[in-house]
Amino acid sequence: MAHLERRPGCVLDYAFNPSSVAVVGASDQPFSFGYHFLRHLLDYGFKGPIYPVNPQKQSLQGVKAYKSLSDVPGDVDLVICCVPTGRVLPLLEECPSKNVKVMHLFTARLSETGRPQALELERTIQNRARELGIRIIGPNCMGIYSPSSGIAFGYGFPRETGNIGVIFQSGGSATTLIQNGMLQGLRFSKVISYGNAFDIDESDIFEYLAGDPNTKVIAAYIEGVKDGQKLMRSLKKAAALKPVVAIKGGRGKAGTRAVMSHTAALAGSLDLWHTAFNQAGVIEAGDIDEMINLLVLFNCLPPIRGGRIGVMGGGGGKNVISADVAEEAGLSLPPFSDDMRRKLREMVPDLWDWVGNPVDFSIWGDSFMKVREIPGLFIESPEFDFLVIQVSDDNPMADDWWVNIIKMEVENIVSYAKQGRKPIVAIMSTAKAGYSDLENVRWKTIAEQRPILVDARIPVFENMAEAAGALNKYIHYWERR
Amino acid sequence: MAHLERRPGCVLDYAFNPSSVAVVGASDQPFSFGYHFLRHLLDYGFKGPIYPVNPQKQSLQGVKAYKSLSDVPGDVDLVICCVPTGRVLPLLEECPSKNVKVMHLFTARLSETGRPQALELERTIQNRARELGIRIIGPNCMGIYSPSSGIAFGYGFPRETGNIGVIFQSGGSATTLIQNGMLQGLRFSKVISYGNAFDIDESDIFEYLAGDPNTKVIAAYIEGVKDGQKLMRSLKKAAALKPVVAIKGGRGKAGTRAVMSHTAALAGSLDLWHTAFNQAGVIEAGDIDEMINLLVLFNCLPPIRGGRIGVMGGGGGKNVISADVAEEAGLSLPPFSDDMRRKLREMVPDLWDWVGNPVDFSIWGDSFMKVREIPGLFIESPEFDFLVIQVSDDNPMADDWWVNIIKMEVENIVSYAKQGRKPIVAIMSTAKAGYSDLENVRWKTIAEQRPILVDARIPVFENMAEAAGALNKYIHYWERR
Repeated sequence: MAHLERRPGCVLDYAFNPSSVAVVGASDQPFSFGYHFLRHLLDYGFKGPIYPVNPQKQSLQGVKAYKSLSDVPGDVDLVICCVPTGRVLPLLEECPSKNVKVMHLFTARLSETGRPQALELERTIQNRARELGIRIIGPNCMGIYSPSSGIAFGYGFPRETGNIGVIFQSGGSATTLIQNGMLQGLRFSKVISYGNAFDIDESDIFEYLAGDPNTKVIAAYIEGVKDGQKLMRSLKKAAALKPVVAIKGGRGKAGTRAVMSHTAALAGSLDLWHTAFNQAGVIEAGDIDEMINLLVLFNCLPPIRGGRIGVMGGGGGKNVISADVAEEAGLSLPPFSDDMRRKLREMVPDLWDWVGNPVDFSIWGDSFMKVREIPGLFIESPEFDFLVIQVSDDNPMADDWWVNIIKMEVENIVSYAKQGRKPIVAIMSTAKAGYSDLENVRWKTIAEQRPILVDARIPVFENMAEAAGALNKYIHYWERR
Repeated sequence: MAHLERRPGCVLDYAFNPSSVAVVGASDQPFSFGYHFLRHLLDYGFKGPIYPVNPQKQSLQGVKAYKSLSDVPGDVDLVICCVPTGRVLPLLEECPSKNVKVMHLFTARLSETGRPQALELERTIQNRARELGIRIIGPNCMGIYSPSSGIAFGYGFPRETGNIGVIFQSGGSATTLIQNGMLQGLRFSKVISYGNAFDIDESDIFEYLAGDPNTKVIAAYIEGVKDGQKLMRSLKKAAALKPVVAIKGGRGKAGTRAVMSHTAALAGSLDLWHTAFNQAGVIEAGDIDEMINLLVLFNCLPPIRGGRIGVMGGGGGKNVISADVAEEAGLSLPPFSDDMRRKLREMVPDLWDWVGNPVDFSIWGDSFMKVREIPGLFIESPEFDFLVIQVSDDNPMADDWWVNIIKMEVENIVSYAKQGRKPIVAIMSTAKAGYSDLENVRWKTIAEQRPILVDARIPVFENMAEAAGALNKYIHYWERR
């Protein structure tokens, strides 16, 4: 057991790195959460004692089961509570005798239903937990994903750890972030879905991840907050130490209603949220896809403090549109300097006066192999902060030639990125190909080449709009620091 | 030969539907355009006489070759010219004897190079063609894709025809539109890449496609225009008859420079372009991906004249974020009417008061199968103009259950869409999965299910941002009419 990470007095250490876990309401019904949470501990290799609690079972999923929490031998750091609302209070009473430090209250249908009785029960649970000294994550949440400890709340999460810490009020959206993000190379240090947050709240978790040495970047999804001053303090502290990318859930009328019935949160004034994020230096994202794009940049690139880009690859139309979109997003494409023109003149005597930034690869004709040197030209020139290289998927060749061009260009991007002399971002469109579309060698090639870029830690985007939107926020972040 | 479509006096009929084609500069070198254009005629099944012209060859790709255009037996409606600039003028002189109607001047390196000599040669070619009465498409362009005639300028284009007419100054971008668009169900009536446009220009083609009965929607990419008044007249005419989606290439500083070296076009004032598009009722897109999204809506949906949507599917966070994004894009999510609440009370007595628009599917628990009825509820209620159904890919089940839920939801969407009672848009994220990611049954399932929605003519988007952005413009278009 990795006790090393535990810092005294910090209850979240017990949640992310417990010595022992009990799943109360554990089950062998594969559609129930009492089944899922137990199975995840087994699947992800939690190394301490696992105690399934179910009054009707001798064993569950091959693990000895206990009739009640009190029957469990030894102490329990973390209780994952999957029983219905009516059985939470009696369970709480059992916790002190087992030295329970923290309970993940997966149990839902409390204040978020908007029903007075459920709200009252939630308040009673909250008060009793406080009296007993049991700290609560939730209720109404998916809880903990801590890959280094072997705890998870979803199937197919990465087993290896990473450097992104995640504070999400929604477990489903955290799942999307983890599962879609892993395809783009993202890995996670500690993830928490915290739901209605009547005890441990977003501010506590920001404080905690701010001090966590394994977390380099923080991603947060917040629907509402009870103590704005406290959040502001912890946001400022966290954002001063590491990049924080946040989504505010419940920005409009319908979203505000949805937030009430999702986590019983009061969405609050949007202006206030924008001001708070801006003052703290938090980077705002509109949705999970934008958040993933931003996290990919923090994961792959060094700080960039300027928006002057060299753009290259693909034909004329692709370059014109990409230049337009990049400029509209706030980036700039400086023209070639005299020095670059001089170098170009040596490289391609028949093209040097015609080529510009963006560099259209389709006009190179017999000199096509020379396009491999173009990134180097931009890298050597101090007029550019970084490069955006588009794969020439619009080239008009027959399949075999087309495939070779794509592979050559991807190889070239990887080779320049490895030199690490200037940040490089790639653009290559998967075009949402369906499974049957991959029988076509072109879509198969794109689908095969994409992970090569991801594995080389090169950010790769569908189009310039996606790339430039994320890059503009990324640069703005570093320019402010 | 399908002579039926030919309207007297209209030269573009000869381009899209020629009786005979000569490829001058035809080749057996598979990286040369003289090879490509000949091969496309053979691959796509052009049914009239094909005349490869090459002074060194007896036959090319299995077709008898001719030493010169003059040696060709019989008339030639369309000449595809792939010879270098220096050989264009002599070729022009041969055209009248063969009764050539139109020449696609693929030949490039003329005014777009910015070099005085090249510009002068372009002017000379232009003047001589006019004197000889030979109409020109180009120079510096990919020419014609006319699936009904078996003419194409790229590999892997659809063989079947569709209802989208395409006017693109850039051939590479037209290729991207065709190849990426076909994955989303788009098919094309007539496509033209027209390059430097010194004779037949965008206005002529707008006029032509406005009158083409097989073209229901027009997509255009324009870098610059010589006669603004003429364009305005033809744009107005076309947009009055059918939807026109257009991209203006060269909107910023770098794009304007790139346009000069791409098609020698003068980009012109952006304000003027916005005003022209707006006055004519043209829908503007920023890039090819946005254009494809808009064309998909025109291809799949009836007119929609209101932005009141019912949103459903997936968990709480997904719904909150989607509601926010939809409202920010200008759509609205009205709350349930009393009538809907009454129906919900009958359907789910334990949930009716809690559920709202957007409908979170994750709280339905034992009533989960009832979510199948939710689209029906929205369809019957006059408060909603259309439905956005999100596939619950954030559901926390193990693989087999997860896959079944996705399949059930896709089946449900298709079944409601087939009823045709209210427009339905789907959201399902492919998350840019790479080829190796598809070994995972989840990504494989998404990739398999996506084409089912496409084949059922249901617009399917990656996320609400993409959907709402396109829908907002789509609705605005129909509301103005």
